[in-house]
Amino acid sequence: MKTRPVRAGIVGATGYTGVELLRLLACHPDVEVAAVTSRSEAGIHIADYFPSLRGVYDLHFQTPDHAALAGCDVVFFATPNGVAMQEAPALLAAGVRVVDLSADFRLKDVAEWEQWYGMKHTAPEWVQKAVYGLSEYRRSEIAAAQLVANPGCYPTCVSLALLPLLKAGALQENQPLIADCKSGVSGAGRKAAVGTLLCEAGDNFKAYGIGGHRHLPEIRQTIDGLQRGVAEGLVFVPHLTPMIRGMHATTYLHLKPGCTPQQLLEDFYRDSRFVDVMPAGSTPETRSVRGANLCRISITQAPQSDVWILLSVQDNLVKGAAGQAVQNMNIMFGLPEDSGLRHAPLLP
Amino acid sequence: MKTRPVRAGIVGATGYTGVELLRLLACHPDVEVAAVTSRSEAGIHIADYFPSLRGVYDLHFQTPDHAALAGCDVVFFATPNGVAMQEAPALLAAGVRVVDLSADFRLKDVAEWEQWYGMKHTAPEWVQKAVYGLSEYRRSEIAAAQLVANPGCYPTCVSLALLPLLKAGALQENQPLIADCKSGVSGAGRKAAVGTLLCEAGDNFKAYGIGGHRHLPEIRQTIDGLQRGVAEGLVFVPHLTPMIRGMHATTYLHLKPGCTPQQLLEDFYRDSRFVDVMPAGSTPETRSVRGANLCRISITQAPQSDVWILLSVQDNLVKGAAGQAVQNMNIMFGLPEDSGLRHAPLLP
Amino acid sequence: MKTRPVRAGIVGATGYTGVELLRLLACHPDVEVAAVTSRSEAGIHIADYFPSLRGVYDLHFQTPDHAALAGCDVVFFATPNGVAMQEAPALLAAGVRVVDLSADFRLKDVAEWEQWYGMKHTAPEWVQKAVYGLSEYRRSEIAAAQLVANPGCYPTCVSLALLPLLKAGALQENQPLIADCKSGVSGAGRKAAVGTLLCEAGDNFKAYGIGGHRHLPEIRQTIDGLQRGVAEGLVFVPHLTPMIRGMHATTYLHLKPGCTPQQLLEDFYRDSRFVDVMPAGSTPETRSVRGANLCRISITQAPQSDVWILLSVQDNLVKGAAGQAVQNMNIMFGLPEDSGLRHAPLLP
Amino acid sequence: MKTRPVRAGIVGATGYTGVELLRLLACHPDVEVAAVTSRSEAGIHIADYFPSLRGVYDLHFQTPDHAALAGCDVVFFATPNGVAMQEAPALLAAGVRVVDLSADFRLKDVAEWEQWYGMKHTAPEWVQKAVYGLSEYRRSEIAAAQLVANPGCYPTCVSLALLPLLKAGALQENQPLIADCKSGVSGAGRKAAVGTLLCEAGDNFKAYGIGGHRHLPEIRQTIDGLQRGVAEGLVFVPHLTPMIRGMHATTYLHLKPGCTPQQLLEDFYRDSRFVDVMPAGSTPETRSVRGANLCRISITQAPQSDVWILLSVQDNLVKGAAGQAVQNMNIMFGLPEDSGLRHAPLLP
Repeated sequence: MKTRPVRAGIVGATGYTGVELLRLLACHPDVEVAAVTSRSEAGIHIADYFPSLRGVYDLHFQTPDHAALAGCDVVFFATPNGVAMQEAPALLAAGVRVVDLSADFRLKDVAEWEQWYGMKHTAPEWVQKAVYGLSEYRRSEIAAAQLVANPGCYPTCVSLALLPLLKAGALQENQPLIADCKSGVSGAGRKAAVGTLLCEAGDNFKAYGIGGHRHLPEIRQTIDGLQRGVAEGLVFVPHLTPMIRGMHATTYLHLKPGCTPQQLLEDFYRDSRFVDVMPAGSTPETRSVRGANLCRISITQAPQSDVWILLSVQDNLVKGAAGQAVQNMNIMFGLPEDSGLRHAPLLP
Repeated sequence: MKTRPVRAGIVGATGYTGVELLRLLACHPDVEVAAVTSRSEAGIHIADYFPSLRGVYDLHFQTPDHAALAGCDVVFFATPNGVAMQEAPALLAAGVRVVDLSADFRLKDVAEWEQWYGMKHTAPEWVQKAVYGLSEYRRSEIAAAQLVANPGCYPTCVSLALLPLLKAGALQENQPLIADCKSGVSGAGRKAAVGTLLCEAGDNFKAYGIGGHRHLPEIRQTIDGLQRGVAEGLVFVPHLTPMIRGMHATTYLHLKPGCTPQQLLEDFYRDSRFVDVMPAGSTPETRSVRGANLCRISITQAPQSDVWILLSVQDNLVKGAAGQAVQNMNIMFGLPEDSGLRHAPLLP
Repeated sequence: MKTRPVRAGIVGATGYTGVELLRLLACHPDVEVAAVTSRSEAGIHIADYFPSLRGVYDLHFQTPDHAALAGCDVVFFATPNGVAMQEAPALLAAGVRVVDLSADFRLKDVAEWEQWYGMKHTAPEWVQKAVYGLSEYRRSEIAAAQLVANPGCYPTCVSLALLPLLKAGALQENQPLIADCKSGVSGAGRKAAVGTLLCEAGDNFKAYGIGGHRHLPEIRQTIDGLQRGVAEGLVFVPHLTPMIRGMHATTYLHLKPGCTPQQLLEDFYRDSRFVDVMPAGSTPETRSVRGANLCRISITQAPQSDVWILLSVQDNLVKGAAGQAVQNMNIMFGLPEDSGLRHAPLLP
Repeated sequence: MKTRPVRAGIVGATGYTGVELLRLLACHPDVEVAAVTSRSEAGIHIADYFPSLRGVYDLHFQTPDHAALAGCDVVFFATPNGVAMQEAPALLAAGVRVVDLSADFRLKDVAEWEQWYGMKHTAPEWVQKAVYGLSEYRRSEIAAAQLVANPGCYPTCVSLALLPLLKAGALQENQPLIADCKSGVSGAGRKAAVGTLLCEAGDNFKAYGIGGHRHLPEIRQTIDGLQRGVAEGLVFVPHLTPMIRGMHATTYLHLKPGCTPQQLLEDFYRDSRFVDVMPAGSTPETRSVRGANLCRISITQAPQSDVWILLSVQDNLVKGAAGQAVQNMNIMFGLPEDSGLRHAPLLP
């Protein structure tokens, strides 16, 4: 017997994580999208906003109305930072479960959060209750969570690669740990800005945020929760690469003598459908995961060096955002973890 | 009760239409891919060839072996022109149904085919039995067909837009009918060639084939089957546009006085899930159908002119090739026409 | 003896035509850039604004100050429509020569201009005095002009191809004349907008402005000045193609019997360094003119048809804007027409 | 009085470094291109091969004929590895000066060269006489050289950034020195290959050569010549980024306490027109040097870390290849170092 579908709401669905949630949920067999809100676009049909959704949904953006959302089983916040901490608590109090794709509940240290995000946190009590939604790391806590803080795209890509090694205490302490990351432009969001015009970001490559990026403390927090003495060495440099989707992390690290990283990775992810440990020496490509909820990882020792190189790729909008959010929802509602997420990557 | 899945084989699965068939069939609930053949890559795991398919299939390319293919219910030919006409007849004789994505069985006039394709046709008897697989045009014949000639990408994009108008006899005879078409580079296939290198085809736009393109007689044949006196005016100019997927046709035509083209289009496609007639004045975008089996169409009268402008877009690898092939297979086997084809387009 | 360089000013140099003027004038042996103005960026060093100009110029944007500009020999307006008509007359009155890259002085019919541009024209007297700066068409008038209205990008690309044919009266009257044009995204300018983000315009192709584009009356005006009875048949459809620079026009036309278009083109452009008539059947590519002040043209008869196909390409920012402006300036000041414009295209 | 131009020959001018040499030399006031050779394309007009050169040169490819080349003052080898070592010695013996853009004469250790390049070196005596043409490092030796080994693209980008620091002995010995490099696709050359098709390399990002890349020993050799104990720590990972031109190096390093890297860089490059030291904290972009012979560099300390980050960008075909070759030729012939290289970068 088919059970009642999970009723989902999406707050702030006018950005790229919003439309990606809509794309993924459109084929989800166990979910019904019940409400899609946007303060600025209220009344507009979502197909007039996203031409790809014509014929897929018959829904209009509505104002973020408590009643509409309180009737949902789960609400996704695909909003700018600072919105979920204001609007989620009332829904949570009404028993709705929440997956927040923004940064509001990711850092346990509220003071540090306030410093990086430049605003006062309005729901610190929920910060402590929130579960950090790196699915492969926190499966059981996510299953029981009422509020999931969906990780940032860079933190997901870097942390999934490091997780098995940190869990085994395999990294050398007090050594540099360098995460050189490259992101497609969709990571910058769907907002009118000169810097991400095709004529500015196209045919161009550059670093950014080298003075300090908000994902740095988030990655540090995950590392610190797994192995002490490692996070202090973290250097994180993000770069913008001229493509729409995709993220690549090249992480340079020092391992303790005698450890077998390939084995550690393979053992850890043996039962994880969405993380693919590739053979040693492989070079994963971002296009191999385009549109799919996947992270592919390989590890190699640098030639004539004691430095190890971890390569990891994901689609920043899927495993790095909306896909992981759906995966977390599946875990929260006891659905098969890959429900709605079984489609193959789009190549070419 | 769930019935036995359709067993499918793919011949020549090393190109873009091949990998696209594999992507679509991976999520098809009613199909099992039983054999994938490639003479040149026999023995290679398909995931070593297409990195996107790691974890999706556990299959190796095998040599095009009659026994393996003869055990299939349907075989897709994703081969260069000239292969299917040689290899399909034996399978057809063994009762296998065939969808040929190459050009071998598209033109009813064998002499004309031989002239355009520069070789002797080896199976002219099957040319006559083949059904031209423009799904929305030939649904009932496709259902009964043993051999379907899947249309070319340009002919699909142009013909779907013209179909309702030609069927109604709405075009003026003896007038120019100009199809100015633009294709993404994947239409040129996955073969080592200088002209389609990123550094040659990227950041560049050009026409090609202006001396005569093989899709010209194919479009003419469809037009001629619907309204006489129109095909003679056809001018077809293909262009290469620097993107991976996507095709856009801009067709300029003369309509008979008093005809209501918007209505004709809407009526004709009312029950066709894969053709979207947009409101008058719309400008369909190729990204709005990326990865999905869809053709979106709009029609407008040129300002201060009696010329009408038909705009139509599709993903050349999906509705223009592999997606339509799967749609045709669904029709042939009495499956829901949209089985395996319900996913939403990938945007951005 | 080397003469004093021409002192040039640029008004509104923060867009793509502005930075392109700066790039071209940087190597111009006979010009000194004396003033660069921008109301919004006054005080900013132009190298902080355009990273490519670090080390090339030591200039700051200044407010559009009459004194600074009145000391120039020539002032280029690279401003939005509606600015030059307000600010140029005072400079013209002071004896400064002006090349206006906006649309303010392009249409001789002021009423028509006001209708298409949605504002009242404030300098209609200068409209009549302005010379339309299609260099190869109006060389002698440009030489004597005080005010040159630099043509739009589409009008340049389409008109240069048609010019020799119209001049010879070779087109059939009362026939459709269809200009299907494709532009790189830089044509939309450098302004924060969602529609031209890399993630929106990248990997996408679409038509726009099919209800009527401002370049339509401009092309019509040029046609009408050359051959009567032709402009009425003009249909113009612009498309956006995912590349930064480049424009391609595919123009479909009917020629009078017995005319020899290849010869007409070659004869007309024999002494024009910036227009390249290619052999019949050629397919010019936009990359073949990237960064250079060139228009390449070919003409072919469509197979089995009486329609002729004109293909023309240019870099929309060079021959389609800033390059032609410099060419016009050269003509105005009696400099060699190709001064500062001799560099070869950038390929790949 | 204008002196006789330098007569230049180009061997193997059918690739991207070849066409780039032709582009740059077309505007060089002191050089005349006297012979362009290609075994495979002999007899073809270079404009039929490179559409951008129509109207720029009136030259045909000729077979690599000793007589033609021996009459040149300088010959550029833009050939695959292994050709120059066979063909250059006879020209050198005839008194011709040679700039080799291939790798044949870059490594002083012939045994190491033979290992990395997998062939026997046929001119080891010339290896010792060759001057490594990193222009800013070896100016005086280049001026006197008969044979210049033009550096690889990655080595140029990484070494220019490190040069002032190594010269000052500022790096900590026995520490990791990590060069994470990203290249546009033109670095792979102009040859038919599946991996660099637009549909494979477009919209994709990946590492390659992580098992060992030929530019590793070349960078090591430069480092070793400047400061001992540093090269051993070098880790070099190249990545392919979906753009045509451009290279970005992100180099992570440890500096000795008290050193002032910004000052060291600025002092070293004060008189070098082609190296731009940007203010601390800058993030140079590849587009800011597109088409120009420039390397832009910045240095920053990673936040809350003792690791320093060097960012350097260049156009891989210009300062990374053909531009540096012309610069070296200028130095060799006593021409102004920037002759023919003064044009501004192409942006957008």
